Amino acid sequence: MEHVSTSQMSPLPFLKGHGTENDFVIVPDPDNTVGLPAAAVARLCDRRAGIGGDGLLHVVRSAAHPEARHMAGEAEWFMDYRNADGSVAEMCGNGVRVFAGYLQRAGHVEEGELSVATRGGIKKVRLAKVPSGSGTATGDITVFMGRAELPEDGVTVSVGARSWPARNVNMGNPHAVAFVEDLAHAGELRTAPQCTPASVYPDGVNVEFVVDRGERHVAMRVHERGSGETRSCGTGACAVAVAAARRDHLDPAVTGVAVTYTVDLPGGRLVITERPDGEIEMTGPAVIVAEGLIDPVLLETVTA
Amino acid sequence: MEHVSTSQMSPLPFLKGHGTENDFVIVPDPDNTVGLPAAAVARLCDRRAGIGGDGLLHVVRSAAHPEARHMAGEAEWFMDYRNADGSVAEMCGNGVRVFAGYLQRAGHVEEGELSVATRGGIKKVRLAKVPSGSGTATGDITVFMGRAELPEDGVTVSVGARSWPARNVNMGNPHAVAFVEDLAHAGELRTAPQCTPASVYPDGVNVEFVVDRGERHVAMRVHERGSGETRSCGTGACAVAVAAARRDHLDPAVTGVAVTYTVDLPGGRLVITERPDGEIEMTGPAVIVAEGLIDPVLLETVTA
Repeated sequence: MEHVSTSQMSPLPFLKGHGTENDFVIVPDPDNTVGLPAAAVARLCDRRAGIGGDGLLHVVRSAAHPEARHMAGEAEWFMDYRNADGSVAEMCGNGVRVFAGYLQRAGHVEEGELSVATRGGIKKVRLAKVPSGSGTATGDITVFMGRAELPEDGVTVSVGARSWPARNVNMGNPHAVAFVEDLAHAGELRTAPQCTPASVYPDGVNVEFVVDRGERHVAMRVHERGSGETRSCGTGACAVAVAAARRDHLDPAVTGVAVTYTVDLPGGRLVITERPDGEIEMTGPAVIVAEGLIDPVLLETVTA
Repeated sequence: MEHVSTSQMSPLPFLKGHGTENDFVIVPDPDNTVGLPAAAVARLCDRRAGIGGDGLLHVVRSAAHPEARHMAGEAEWFMDYRNADGSVAEMCGNGVRVFAGYLQRAGHVEEGELSVATRGGIKKVRLAKVPSGSGTATGDITVFMGRAELPEDGVTVSVGARSWPARNVNMGNPHAVAFVEDLAHAGELRTAPQCTPASVYPDGVNVEFVVDRGERHVAMRVHERGSGETRSCGTGACAVAVAAARRDHLDPAVTGVAVTYTVDLPGGRLVITERPDGEIEMTGPAVIVAEGLIDPVLLETVTA
């Protein structure tokens, strides 16, 4: 345990923001001068003793970060993403939207295409023009989420005495998408739903419950493996849109026409477009709710 | 539903702080010019879509607030306390400590005694001198919590198959204090412990589980009625200290000597002193972790 002395530290600039209520502490640090040991990140993300967030977005120029320097030619900014416990992570679909929204708000980038360096490689983002009169709000932000795979497994999702057939969708992570009559039928979701056969998901699974709200418009709840029910899951929304399209006999790869679904999550609305080439675009808001300075006392006793 | 237009609003100054991890959004507003409808408070206290807090401390000069004007001669500052859902509340022991800590940090008050106007009347607080070299940290803050009543009811607390005899302590609100061998024996506390006979607590009860840590030093967990297990409960810590004193055959009213217990809660340490006149003093930290500006976009769509 190394004691990190910050008694000489000045207050640390931060922002707080969220994408469909997946929320983040944002630490702008273009020149990578802020040491952020895991314990400091955990303290910042602590919802009661710190600022609070599902994760932390450390905003660094790629050229200034050893893990991103090789991407600096293609992507000026590196999303050094941290989980709430301080561990590093590769990518976060809601996080990269908030990351890009911050860059736009700070004047570092303008509307249009943006490449963001992440530990999962370079991610393309498209920034809408900020609507006039919206003050400091960002416009909608589109993230390219890759392709879905839909293995033809017969999967069943169960909660208590209720069971539903489900669609197995892989977005780089595993999903089971169940269409239900009523989202309340999934119950309180305090524990993970049962998925059978278990052999289909050796590493666990994210489970989505979906109802129809209108034409190409659905609403969902999600139970994320390791996290429980959450307000938003970007890959889950994509899995749901693709599963809904197939159920509705729509496949852009066959028809050559992009298909768009509106997906309402507890934390907000995402619009998911599957293109004929299979690429999935996820569009949604990024909201910066506050900015300020973190008192050095918060990080004073942090050990790493 | 009245739409509150804030499109002309400038960013709203705020701080975030906690007392033994009972956390608050602080809105300094000496002249009471910030309208804070319930929906705005709820948005600010939302942990994902807003800043996040167990409650909100609206800091107003008593002379500027209709509910506190009559106390302005005795107490310059009014703690306009709001619950996280936006409803008003009378008092909060951890909140008034953070409130006083903020006033000290902002230079509005110095160490020594301070009177704070609350909806529960005027509360006296004692501020320690801020230790030199502590930067922006506050010193310990003492709140006078009133007296305990200890009706001689035989109460039993049960969790699952385990039961313990408990002490009924009233601190203005009802408590059942159970001394246990191991705090883990209380289990996950996802539901309220059983308290019998139920007739002793017609309005529900806060339940404390207590273990000894040393001489006049205990540790506790608390299940608060309506909230579940929490990181800290000021009146609970007072109830525990008094119950421990009686168990140890110590009664300041009899001996004429004040008795002090150190009480460790999940969120930190409180020191509780019961004086011969019955008054209970609770001393603990107040931590301001950040300060900044809330983006008007957060409150733009709030309806009241």
